Amino acid sequence: MFFPSSIQNLINQFNKLPGIGIKTAEKFVFYLLKQPKGKLKEFNLAFEELEKKIIKCSLCFNFTEINNFNKDGFNFCSICADSQRDKSILCVIAEPQDLLTIEKTNEYHGLYHILNGVINTIKEIGPERLKIKELIQRIRNSQSSTPVKEIILAFNPDIEGETTILYLTKIFKPSKIKITRLARGLPMGSELEYADEITLTNALKNRQNL
Amino acid sequence: MFFPSSIQNLINQFNKLPGIGIKTAEKFVFYLLKQPKGKLKEFNLAFEELEKKIIKCSLCFNFTEINNFNKDGFNFCSICADSQRDKSILCVIAEPQDLLTIEKTNEYHGLYHILNGVINTIKEIGPERLKIKELIQRIRNSQSSTPVKEIILAFNPDIEGETTILYLTKIFKPSKIKITRLARGLPMGSELEYADEITLTNALKNRQNL
Repeated sequence: MFFPSSIQNLINQFNKLPGIGIKTAEKFVFYLLKQPKGKLKEFNLAFEELEKKIIKCSLCFNFTEINNFNKDGFNFCSICADSQRDKSILCVIAEPQDLLTIEKTNEYHGLYHILNGVINTIKEIGPERLKIKELIQRIRNSQSSTPVKEIILAFNPDIEGETTILYLTKIFKPSKIKITRLARGLPMGSELEYADEITLTNALKNRQNL
Repeated sequence: MFFPSSIQNLINQFNKLPGIGIKTAEKFVFYLLKQPKGKLKEFNLAFEELEKKIIKCSLCFNFTEINNFNKDGFNFCSICADSQRDKSILCVIAEPQDLLTIEKTNEYHGLYHILNGVINTIKEIGPERLKIKELIQRIRNSQSSTPVKEIILAFNPDIEGETTILYLTKIFKPSKIKITRLARGLPMGSELEYADEITLTNALKNRQNL
């Protein structure tokens, strides 16, 4: 009302971002307006590119760009298209961000499958809303070329993650594929004194031979 | 590196906003990517509009849209173009956000003049980098139509604000224009016990008759 509608509009858009209140949204817009015009254009272009180019990988549902690694009308992400990666291991994760976190360890060289969430009974997210059908189909298809030998279930160690692990284990148990999960135990740098009971129970149960 | 460059680009852009680290920037971009495509387009459009339409008011340097209230090639903001506002009072402020804050009180009905900052010797912002020349010219020009009778100096009560007040008072003191500043004293809801000495000194010095 005191500012032109185009300023108000962008404030409202920023206000929709997670954790951003109206004051912070105002701060962002005025910060941007104080920058040289080129900076605003840069930001705008980055937005436009994202909106135009980003699609999901046809195989693992990671984000990728249109015509990135196109094979027979399918779009593959850089990881799925990488011939160096071990196609016999599949790491099943909830969100694309988890891929980033795992890649940063430099410890995993297999492929990914992004479920697009986890089973959440409170939010009424059932298995049918996740990419589980696609996972089953993908593993079935792999038999003809490089069969998947191991599925790593890498979800957050919470109720939803555990539910999803249970559900997927039930599905894949009958097959000969090895199913693993991320180890639970004490995180690096933590103190025994402050560890919660579940973490400590898990650390005891899964104690390792030296 | 693990994500397409268009995702990385937008993360970098968000990362430049004040107080936004790389993790939060990532959260924003993945949040946006999870929204239906229309939402992303909305955000993009808001950006585009801001970039294309926003200019500064030729009179007070508030933000306004191109061809908003055009007079003889000048662009006026909605406040400067409002004939209901009292043209004889001028409130001098540092930033456009301050205008919003003052307007919200519904107590002020004059015009504004935005300096685009305050004098800051540490950051080497001298008076020549502020819209002070324009302020002097504006007051001089006003003599031919509605002369400015009062200048309210509304800056933050800190060293930079006080310096700017001193500087402007020196300039305008020789003229017959009344110069005022925002009252200093105890803020509403505060406790006497916790008031700092300068605030309390000001509250005592400027005590009001009942």
